[in-house]
Amino acid sequence: MSELPNFDNILSAYSRIKNQVKRTPILSSMSVNEILNCNVFFKCENFQKVGAFKFRGASNAVLSLDNSKIRNGVATHSSGNHAQALALAASMQGIPAYIVMPNNSPKVKSDAVASYGGKIIYCEPTLQARELTLENIVQQTDAFFVHPYNNFYVICGQGTAALELLEETSDLDIVMTPVGGGGLLSGTSITVKAKSPNTLVIAGEPSGADDAFRSFYTGQLIPSVNPKTIADGLLTSLGSMTFQIITQNVDRIFTVSEDSIINAMRIIWERMKIIIEPSSAVPVAAIMENVDFFRNKRIGVILSGGNVDLGKLPF
Amino acid sequence: MSELPNFDNILSAYSRIKNQVKRTPILSSMSVNEILNCNVFFKCENFQKVGAFKFRGASNAVLSLDNSKIRNGVATHSSGNHAQALALAASMQGIPAYIVMPNNSPKVKSDAVASYGGKIIYCEPTLQARELTLENIVQQTDAFFVHPYNNFYVICGQGTAALELLEETSDLDIVMTPVGGGGLLSGTSITVKAKSPNTLVIAGEPSGADDAFRSFYTGQLIPSVNPKTIADGLLTSLGSMTFQIITQNVDRIFTVSEDSIINAMRIIWERMKIIIEPSSAVPVAAIMENVDFFRNKRIGVILSGGNVDLGKLPF
Repeated sequence: MSELPNFDNILSAYSRIKNQVKRTPILSSMSVNEILNCNVFFKCENFQKVGAFKFRGASNAVLSLDNSKIRNGVATHSSGNHAQALALAASMQGIPAYIVMPNNSPKVKSDAVASYGGKIIYCEPTLQARELTLENIVQQTDAFFVHPYNNFYVICGQGTAALELLEETSDLDIVMTPVGGGGLLSGTSITVKAKSPNTLVIAGEPSGADDAFRSFYTGQLIPSVNPKTIADGLLTSLGSMTFQIITQNVDRIFTVSEDSIINAMRIIWERMKIIIEPSSAVPVAAIMENVDFFRNKRIGVILSGGNVDLGKLPF
Repeated sequence: MSELPNFDNILSAYSRIKNQVKRTPILSSMSVNEILNCNVFFKCENFQKVGAFKFRGASNAVLSLDNSKIRNGVATHSSGNHAQALALAASMQGIPAYIVMPNNSPKVKSDAVASYGGKIIYCEPTLQARELTLENIVQQTDAFFVHPYNNFYVICGQGTAALELLEETSDLDIVMTPVGGGGLLSGTSITVKAKSPNTLVIAGEPSGADDAFRSFYTGQLIPSVNPKTIADGLLTSLGSMTFQIITQNVDRIFTVSEDSIINAMRIIWERMKIIIEPSSAVPVAAIMENVDFFRNKRIGVILSGGNVDLGKLPF
């Protein structure tokens, strides 16, 4: 069992990355508060570089690793925000990033990775092909594999968003994030339990990809099989590290329907005039599905990202 | 000729409305700056209450007028953001707002006005019908007509967005707004010329509704005939007051194509993850069409609003 990160590690991560990441604003909306029957403070990681919180974790990984380890670059397999984040973080350090992507990835995603300087290696769209291709790349290039979430430094970096949130708000009853692989939720939970022990940490998860919910309530790590949700950032399952941290720190996980996710996303777009991806709408959907639980609470919600294909909106 | 507002009037407006309007954030984006080849500070009035700067002017009008004048309410004809803004400002004072709207207005707009407590009176979709219907309403109800832009108090309210912009930025070379009826541009120009005399005030205007451009450069007020543009907030023509103020204070007006507006709008949505309406994209389009003029400048851009029909996007 590898060592789990603690709050000091997150503070170190913050001093390492704070000049490289954007300090994103915290926005509120009276009309959203009226709709949700509570006071919500939205930490806008959709405004983060590469459009997602993932840049925090990738930056911390690249800046934490020994020069000797990463002088030949970093590598990962991802078709999502972690790929873009690692590509940008690596290029800011002047090292290559090798990104293994399934050959059916949308062009908009591969274009984004390429625009941040990532070197793309395509593979068949199966998990096996992705892992094998990554292994080959790592052997060929001696690049260092940075896992999208089950990585000490990545988790620490993700925990810095909550740090900024708690610095600028007070007396939060609850802090919420979505949960996919659990990197954001893990880092957030460490920060919140250290800085504000009475604040609950609660996650929202799509019913169609509810491995964290099932793992959390059974105490057994149960990965998703064929997960399906519009929240494409949340298709991944918890890893060994994130499962442990979440089991220790998180107070509750709510699952939500696809309709609620789309409805919540539309409300945020229309009322707040900000673009969030479906994954970001999941905690808002959880509030909407559990009105009595959240009524009149002061809630910090980390909006995880804003990368959507404007040509394919669900409304 | 009625008296024109000065900077003191704008300061008074600000002390009157500042507890009622939202202090909107100023956002920047490295990737947008790279695309535009300059440093842009976006004043996000798309996040203002009712989703547009119009709430500033409407609030100031309602809060400035003698109780005796407005105890029977206020009235206007508009199908756009001013209608929503006046409805909300009136309801916050507990007085009725009578809004004359063409009977072909999109339901999303009449729903919005109704949701802010406005009383809607439909008319035929001609300027004549609108003015006649408004006249009748004013006679029947003794409500006070608040013009959408050619009104002393409305102009003063609109000038408060630039006040906040200049408080939070320094050494701006240029401040830009779109121009339709000219309320925002007028108010902005008074503020900027008083607080930062060396800063240029520049407007963007759609080529298909270029009455301000033609009026400004000929020195004659020439209203648009059959204006056509996707920037639906800019179909109106300058009024007598706004024309005078703009002639005195504004340094330049650039016209832009429809393609540029859509392109600029898409860049702001994709790179900044914020929702702006086409009118807000017009100054950005002007920067994109005149790269050499704006190169390396520090530019404040007032994003006028974010009210779009998500079901009818131009991309």
